[in-house]
Amino acid sequence: MSQLVQEKLAQATQILDEFDTDLWLTFVRETSMQPDPALELIADVDVTWQSAFLISRTGKHTAIVGNFDAENVRLLNAYDEVIGYDEGIGEPLRAALARYNPRQIAINYSEGDVAADGLSHGMYLVLQRLLQDTPFADKLVSAEKIVAALRGRKSPTEIDLVRQAVATTEALFDEVEQFVRPGMTQQQIAEFVHERIEAQGLDYAWPKPFNPIVTCGPDSAIGHVAPGNVVLQPGHTLHLDLGIKQNGYCSDLQRMWYVLAEGETEAPPDVQRAFDVVRGAIEAGRVALRPGVPGWQVDAVARQYIVDHGYPEYMHAFGHLLGRSAHDGATVLGPRWERYAGICELPVEVGNIFTLELHVVVPGRGIMSLEEDVLVTADTVEYLGTPQTVLRYIQS
Amino acid sequence: MSQLVQEKLAQATQILDEFDTDLWLTFVRETSMQPDPALELIADVDVTWQSAFLISRTGKHTAIVGNFDAENVRLLNAYDEVIGYDEGIGEPLRAALARYNPRQIAINYSEGDVAADGLSHGMYLVLQRLLQDTPFADKLVSAEKIVAALRGRKSPTEIDLVRQAVATTEALFDEVEQFVRPGMTQQQIAEFVHERIEAQGLDYAWPKPFNPIVTCGPDSAIGHVAPGNVVLQPGHTLHLDLGIKQNGYCSDLQRMWYVLAEGETEAPPDVQRAFDVVRGAIEAGRVALRPGVPGWQVDAVARQYIVDHGYPEYMHAFGHLLGRSAHDGATVLGPRWERYAGICELPVEVGNIFTLELHVVVPGRGIMSLEEDVLVTADTVEYLGTPQTVLRYIQS
Repeated sequence: MSQLVQEKLAQATQILDEFDTDLWLTFVRETSMQPDPALELIADVDVTWQSAFLISRTGKHTAIVGNFDAENVRLLNAYDEVIGYDEGIGEPLRAALARYNPRQIAINYSEGDVAADGLSHGMYLVLQRLLQDTPFADKLVSAEKIVAALRGRKSPTEIDLVRQAVATTEALFDEVEQFVRPGMTQQQIAEFVHERIEAQGLDYAWPKPFNPIVTCGPDSAIGHVAPGNVVLQPGHTLHLDLGIKQNGYCSDLQRMWYVLAEGETEAPPDVQRAFDVVRGAIEAGRVALRPGVPGWQVDAVARQYIVDHGYPEYMHAFGHLLGRSAHDGATVLGPRWERYAGICELPVEVGNIFTLELHVVVPGRGIMSLEEDVLVTADTVEYLGTPQTVLRYIQS
Repeated sequence: MSQLVQEKLAQATQILDEFDTDLWLTFVRETSMQPDPALELIADVDVTWQSAFLISRTGKHTAIVGNFDAENVRLLNAYDEVIGYDEGIGEPLRAALARYNPRQIAINYSEGDVAADGLSHGMYLVLQRLLQDTPFADKLVSAEKIVAALRGRKSPTEIDLVRQAVATTEALFDEVEQFVRPGMTQQQIAEFVHERIEAQGLDYAWPKPFNPIVTCGPDSAIGHVAPGNVVLQPGHTLHLDLGIKQNGYCSDLQRMWYVLAEGETEAPPDVQRAFDVVRGAIEAGRVALRPGVPGWQVDAVARQYIVDHGYPEYMHAFGHLLGRSAHDGATVLGPRWERYAGICELPVEVGNIFTLELHVVVPGRGIMSLEEDVLVTADTVEYLGTPQTVLRYIQS
């Protein structure tokens, strides 16, 4: 992974230059308990005591960490200077800042972007205290734009890793289709997926109790709910929302099946129409997704498509970034609701990988929900993998 | 785990009363990316959108979460009121605060205690904005005392769980002793432990790359360093620092072996003396550990013991709390250094589980480092498990 860190650090230097920012400070402690999601991009190690990672616009980088962690940071071969300390970080931190003498210091917090918000409030107060009576105390600004760009603009290596995770997930869906029979519970289906994930040494893109989400027919709760005892029945839909993490990068996909009832050879019209409308909305959204467009405009196209076809709008965002995490921070393709304030105004950028997802409910049948992973390039939006364009069937 | 949550919530109500605090608010989002270590004590679920957990002194509790997460929180059977929302948390949060009408609101941040510092700085700013122009904006105080007490005072169920994790770890050390031969590398020894941990379906108390830490002889780096290619040799020490997580609770233990050289039947005097001094210091520290004593005084006893016996002092704390996490926050048995400011002044309490740990270096032989896990009761300090009182041997 150390090659990836070096790739991202080189990118970070360019981004600092683009945003005319002299220094980016990531201030953390006990990262196995209080992780900063941005740290894995620039250091990919855990640290214990108060630690400072200084990335400068000049391309020179300094890490200040407890002596017990210093060797691990040196092994990254990514920092020109690794300073270990025993008693306190205050003095070496102030000395390093004096050497860089930055006009402004971008630090790791953000109101809107959880992935750029690794600084705890307690640590913010600690930093204020360490810098009081220095010229640096008044130079602190949010690093959210820097982190969002660094995380959001995937490098070629990162794109390959997500593509691989998507391919692995599609193969899992094929295995599920072979395994599933009417009469099975949500839990049995989830357990099968867990066994296959663990047999391949893969990780989960989000916590295992809700991964996969398995929705069987009209009696399943919708949302982030653990698979329960609802039994899969003929005439119902089966829905899986599954994300794996492979070599540190995630997939996040949803697939749909219909369980044929006796005598049926295809889905009834209400089910087929719901599939077509959900699929159509995802494709309409994909076409609207272009560099420079703010996230909410992409959501609005998919949302309007659903409403125009007579279904109620979905109560979530149409898409989110995907990468190191399933919810990879920053730009959201979501409506202008309080809870997406700021992040749905951010523009789509080249190199972004988004999920596109939405659902409708088919009364008496279950939900109809699809999710695809796509890459934004300069002139197109590419599906990473094979989108579901046809409703899949399970025989009774 | 839901029984544990109910146990801790009942305890929380008593603690709020003890500290004369009306309401404790835990404000979080995307907890799988930005976890609050205190949330697992009071809710043990992941939530996605901005979420508020309100624990009141009256014993009534309210959770306000995104609609997609509401069902999971209801399933805990721990909150009198679970309010789901779609567009934004502001209105339901202000309404709930108005109903409780607290004199002060303790929120989830702390300068000194990472385990009580789950509120990010960005989320602190969000909360300020949501509460501006309300009477609640001026009532925010740190919940650090409440979290430290709740986390630090282990319930009987929690004590049993740590005791079990310690027993499991001791059995792993016995297996290691059977497996290890001179000529093996640190990495081979670590891989054996990983296989045994995973075969038993256990988790790691801290990240796997540094768990166990394996130190072989004088050429191993000391600290949080991944096992490398150093080969175990006769006449050297072997040291393991290992922590597992079993049923959500951790162990954290260090054990020492000496590899007998040809013709030796016991360790040479320099090695044996180092073992005796380290063991003696741990026992002296245990005797000094009593309810009401501030952490630094316990450290001082062990530190003085080492120095009095002619070794240089160790450059870390003598002990930390242990429980849900290996470094379980709050009180540290550490010296009055900048980096332990505040947390080494906190008093030891009944129900605390501490590690006791320190090391010395034996020139040409390797390090000598022990760590035990102990429980503080009203009138004694009990080893959880069997402390290492005799240096163990590996035959050549």
